[in-house]
Amino acid sequence: MEDFSDMKSSAEAAVAMDFSSNPIIQRLDALSIPHATYSHAPSTTAEELVANVPLPGGGPDGGSETHTKNLLFKDKKHGLILVSACTDAEVDTKELAKMLKLEGKANLRLADEATLLEKLGCTRGCVGPLSAMNNADKDVRLVLDEAFLTKDRVHSHPMRNDASTALAPSDMMKFLKEVGVEPVLLSFPKRGDAPPIPSTPAHQPPHKSKPTIPPKPKDAPKAANKDKKQTKKGETQLALKWSKSENFAMWYTDVIVLSEMISYYDISGCYILRPWSYKIWELIQDWFNVQIRKLGVENSYFPMFVSRDRLEKEKDHVEGFAPEVAWVTKSGDGDLAAPIAVRPTSETIMYPAFADWIRSHRDLPLKLNQWSNVVRWEFKDPTPFLRTREFLWQEGHTAHASFDDANVMVRQALDLYRRVYEELLAVPVIPGYKTEKEKFAGGHTTTTVEAYIPVSGRAIQGATSHHLGQNFARMFDINYQDERGETQLAWQTSWGLTTRTIGVMVMVHGDDTGLVLPPRVAPLQVVIVPIVSKHCPLSTLSSYCDEVLKVLEGRDVRCKLDDRDIYNPGWKYAHWEQKGVPIRVEVGPRDLENRQVRMVVRFGGEKVDVNFDDLAGSVLGKLDEVQGNMLARAREFRDDHLVRVTEWKDFVPNLELHNLVLTPWCGGTHTDWEEWVKDKSREESLTSRGEDGEAATAATSVAAKTLCIPFEQPELEEGTKCIASGLPATCWILWGRSY
Amino acid sequence: MEDFSDMKSSAEAAVAMDFSSNPIIQRLDALSIPHATYSHAPSTTAEELVANVPLPGGGPDGGSETHTKNLLFKDKKHGLILVSACTDAEVDTKELAKMLKLEGKANLRLADEATLLEKLGCTRGCVGPLSAMNNADKDVRLVLDEAFLTKDRVHSHPMRNDASTALAPSDMMKFLKEVGVEPVLLSFPKRGDAPPIPSTPAHQPPHKSKPTIPPKPKDAPKAANKDKKQTKKGETQLALKWSKSENFAMWYTDVIVLSEMISYYDISGCYILRPWSYKIWELIQDWFNVQIRKLGVENSYFPMFVSRDRLEKEKDHVEGFAPEVAWVTKSGDGDLAAPIAVRPTSETIMYPAFADWIRSHRDLPLKLNQWSNVVRWEFKDPTPFLRTREFLWQEGHTAHASFDDANVMVRQALDLYRRVYEELLAVPVIPGYKTEKEKFAGGHTTTTVEAYIPVSGRAIQGATSHHLGQNFARMFDINYQDERGETQLAWQTSWGLTTRTIGVMVMVHGDDTGLVLPPRVAPLQVVIVPIVSKHCPLSTLSSYCDEVLKVLEGRDVRCKLDDRDIYNPGWKYAHWEQKGVPIRVEVGPRDLENRQVRMVVRFGGEKVDVNFDDLAGSVLGKLDEVQGNMLARAREFRDDHLVRVTEWKDFVPNLELHNLVLTPWCGGTHTDWEEWVKDKSREESLTSRGEDGEAATAATSVAAKTLCIPFEQPELEEGTKCIASGLPATCWILWGRSY
Repeated sequence: MEDFSDMKSSAEAAVAMDFSSNPIIQRLDALSIPHATYSHAPSTTAEELVANVPLPGGGPDGGSETHTKNLLFKDKKHGLILVSACTDAEVDTKELAKMLKLEGKANLRLADEATLLEKLGCTRGCVGPLSAMNNADKDVRLVLDEAFLTKDRVHSHPMRNDASTALAPSDMMKFLKEVGVEPVLLSFPKRGDAPPIPSTPAHQPPHKSKPTIPPKPKDAPKAANKDKKQTKKGETQLALKWSKSENFAMWYTDVIVLSEMISYYDISGCYILRPWSYKIWELIQDWFNVQIRKLGVENSYFPMFVSRDRLEKEKDHVEGFAPEVAWVTKSGDGDLAAPIAVRPTSETIMYPAFADWIRSHRDLPLKLNQWSNVVRWEFKDPTPFLRTREFLWQEGHTAHASFDDANVMVRQALDLYRRVYEELLAVPVIPGYKTEKEKFAGGHTTTTVEAYIPVSGRAIQGATSHHLGQNFARMFDINYQDERGETQLAWQTSWGLTTRTIGVMVMVHGDDTGLVLPPRVAPLQVVIVPIVSKHCPLSTLSSYCDEVLKVLEGRDVRCKLDDRDIYNPGWKYAHWEQKGVPIRVEVGPRDLENRQVRMVVRFGGEKVDVNFDDLAGSVLGKLDEVQGNMLARAREFRDDHLVRVTEWKDFVPNLELHNLVLTPWCGGTHTDWEEWVKDKSREESLTSRGEDGEAATAATSVAAKTLCIPFEQPELEEGTKCIASGLPATCWILWGRSY
Repeated sequence: MEDFSDMKSSAEAAVAMDFSSNPIIQRLDALSIPHATYSHAPSTTAEELVANVPLPGGGPDGGSETHTKNLLFKDKKHGLILVSACTDAEVDTKELAKMLKLEGKANLRLADEATLLEKLGCTRGCVGPLSAMNNADKDVRLVLDEAFLTKDRVHSHPMRNDASTALAPSDMMKFLKEVGVEPVLLSFPKRGDAPPIPSTPAHQPPHKSKPTIPPKPKDAPKAANKDKKQTKKGETQLALKWSKSENFAMWYTDVIVLSEMISYYDISGCYILRPWSYKIWELIQDWFNVQIRKLGVENSYFPMFVSRDRLEKEKDHVEGFAPEVAWVTKSGDGDLAAPIAVRPTSETIMYPAFADWIRSHRDLPLKLNQWSNVVRWEFKDPTPFLRTREFLWQEGHTAHASFDDANVMVRQALDLYRRVYEELLAVPVIPGYKTEKEKFAGGHTTTTVEAYIPVSGRAIQGATSHHLGQNFARMFDINYQDERGETQLAWQTSWGLTTRTIGVMVMVHGDDTGLVLPPRVAPLQVVIVPIVSKHCPLSTLSSYCDEVLKVLEGRDVRCKLDDRDIYNPGWKYAHWEQKGVPIRVEVGPRDLENRQVRMVVRFGGEKVDVNFDDLAGSVLGKLDEVQGNMLARAREFRDDHLVRVTEWKDFVPNLELHNLVLTPWCGGTHTDWEEWVKDKSREESLTSRGEDGEAATAATSVAAKTLCIPFEQPELEEGTKCIASGLPATCWILWGRSY
């Protein structure tokens, strides 16, 4: 990964503009490709751009940044060619034909606007290299100016001529690769250059100067063969563009957008939770609220703003969060006298109040929870659900009279998290301790549940529960008089579960058709589809469908009758399958006649006829069965990828096999052996993959990190050595590549 | 009210510091008295203060701002005298005794630190005039330098020597009055003055120069006679300090703090919703969610940040909200390229997505709701629940194919609000239309439910539901193809209900003992208190109490057994009465013997013995009865203060009687007759009260404003004239003083 820290501020420029519905920007964001998109005066020609938007550097010697000029050529025999070059490039059609080795006579002419629109989805003056994404038929060759590679950034129109998107050339290449476009790189003479020679800039490896012809359609990646129509505004698109195995990241974006869980938003890292995902969150909330109430935890709400003084009171804590804190500094047109932080978490907001409320041992334990939004302004790969700048969570905060009492609370909370994953989301998790290095900033110990994402072979932290010790209590004066009248510091815990849960569930269970929802969190558990036809209008089936609905609703099944007359049954099957509804109940004329229904199960695809009289029992039984089977299958798959490794040589090969790796561990107290494993595993992974290995994994790292020291420890034989240090091992520790 | 707009930025200085537990600051905020509190180097003497914290102006001619010097004198015969003077004042004890007309021999000596601590709650060097608040016994005379009145602001220690609170002198006087302290004003010679003559500054009315001796304790306001101990950290204080009728604002603060609904926070306008109030919000949410689901509204969650572009897209809308918008401009140490607003409401956040999702008439209606926090950085009197800078609400947003469809939605939402108030909170409301002047910024029409607060005689807007017309649809391109394939703009609505509901409920039903909660929103509906004594230990009653609990829980009564052994029954009665629990079930030895319980009702105080066998029925019946009676009583009281007035001369006298006033109205389309009524009613109110009239009402205005044009219109006789313009009336309109 290149370092784009210097791009942050310009990348932030995108923030103030409305690009949320721009497919290019959406895709860039979905791919976590850093870009800076900004608006400017409408500029349809390269000349206007250069005049309106001056860039650093430039000039014939290869300045640091460049705009592009873009030409779509049409040739009867050779088809369409989009050339995107530096603004100072001279593009000669004959030279171009020669460079591209076009056979026979070539007659390159500029394409008309209708072609532009049809093939690149843009009008004249709005085209850029990124528009190639819109070429669903993959029948436009993209030719890029090789001089792009000498630039720090290339600026081009994101399908509108009043804005530009600045990208590092390597990121432009990554983007094009991801959207299935393989550009030809050609060297164009620049204005003021010597006569046109297709030469290579000195610092480019010579093989890059040879034009590479894009593969014919039959060689293109699988996805490219599908009939990929551009999604029009609001159109329900029933087929995913990507399969889970061919491009997991793109598949994920596809699934969550098309199933109507997520919509993108014009502020990077912020997403819209549509009813289809928010309802899942509500179902998790409902269950969790019942459980914590049993533990004596009460809900409350604390302000989301925190003063700098308070936020910075606990040194380690603030170090952990400060770089990601969003600060409010103005109200209306006026400056606030002191900036106010938006909560990244609420320890420093709640604990001064704890100090006020807690006076005697009688006031303990104090157990509060809140459901809230928090903000962590991260610059690392935003991904819907998994890593977002604003997210929803619950945060529990408790104070106790003893270390042990706090510890019980920590483990109770963690066990609820395990149950959310396993019992509601059907995702198996491994509970354990975080290492010192990975624990919560300012806490004493952190416990975690770790999940496994099958296709990417990566681990993901599910939720954490922290024993805070007396650290915050000391900083915030949370003390109490014990039975003997002596003043004591309280022991504290905090624990949080976020909307990340939903993303993990999607990743674990989804398939190439779309979502597969575990019944307990499915917004709809059953959809009833009447099989309407010319011979059997809705009116014939309607009252029987209502009966079916009534029976299921009467048993508290979350159920819907889709009797819309604007869609045919086939469309509805596909629609609800994509949205992951666990059971479809089909009601056709034959079912009416036999007083039965056909039950079709999303997970596994089973189809079975059920008598009306057995309906509720069968549906409820099947929902339970599916819930159990989904967990069992996910667990089986996870267990297949959970291996014990005792020698370093087996470590990276197992990562490459998408495994989580359990190794003996010395505790790494004197030397930072965790860092050693991270570095070493990254290094070996890259070596084994060749130099593009890292880039191929997109935004995530190939290095392994510690996930947890599992509570459940295999026996550790006498004399076992730590896999990293070779010192005597004290426990087994779990490693994996992780999100 | 003076204009403190110029104080805003310095007042904001308080934000970054931790004054939340400072009783003086709490009281100032509770009284909505504008102040600027800031920290500085610890300064125990006037000299240090002048050196450490330079102020504008100063000098012998009466500069614009001053610090104070503070001296507590003790005299065996004449008691305690606290003198607070400008830093350049010369305080001579003999002159002081003379000016105060102390009889006989006076021997004024500085009080020792123990006395300072006991009487003013401060250590040496931390005393200021505001510390007089802490003098619960009212045995310290406060003498203020009359020169304070010539200053723009007086800076004094809020009980700590590393901070100062700057107040306009009039506000200092208001504060002292509110806390029951009547200061003596004396003129002290200033350094460099001519010999000490107790003269009056030229622009002060002469009668002010005469020292006024504070009233003896028996003349002090009622509250002063109570044994007002300072609340210690976390201590449960069972008696309210203020009665509802003697000081409504202070009573309100008392009730919500002591019942553990609210804790104050160190950022002005932000409050902590403790479980006792948050649970009420959850109960409202639960009910509301069921109702809106029936209307086809789905919950969702949109980002809380909005870019400036989008926020400012609808001109009228942004004009309405811009001055109160909080802006995030930094993350970590870096500046964002463009500031991002924290949502004051979500029209501009949601509607671009609406534009994406809505394409065809088939996509309509679109009905979404979200529960969220919003921020409006107001500078007007923050009051817990009623007006806070961050608050919780639901906001419904819908799009429809026709004006009428939208209108139906608007009225359905409003009717839910009416039901929340009437059926859950037992608060009667008047539904109607807002005038053009009072409608939602950017909308077409606003409907509202208006509540009445008995003791203050003020109206309060309960919740609003807006018909947005096509205004936002036009700005955000929310259009769809109708059945004929023609493009149409959508019609929209938005509607919101906030945590204000809780404050209104507290104000309407609370009494001098504390909260009185309507059963349907009471976090606990029944508390069971075992009457434990030496002769009857808990062990005797325990299993019967459990039986009682089980029966009630089995009927879904929100119920708790308070069997804590650290509090006696009397304490528990008082505790739960203050928290407003509708029914107390007492279980004593006699009850055990007779297999009965004693049921004590919070609303009305009824006590009745109930057989165990009738327990559930009696309790459920009583809860219903109380719910109905609370609404009935509130409605009766409201109706008694709802009068029709047809002549202007009766208008202000009716406001003075704490009435809402219904008048004939011309619509005021050509001239701004609403403004006229506002001005005229303010003017006449002040005249009728004398010059201090306005100050006496603290932060709220005595002017009347329009509340709504009620849906339910009395008959309007032919020829009725508008009360303001004298033009023919077109409707009845409701006026009141309002929050």
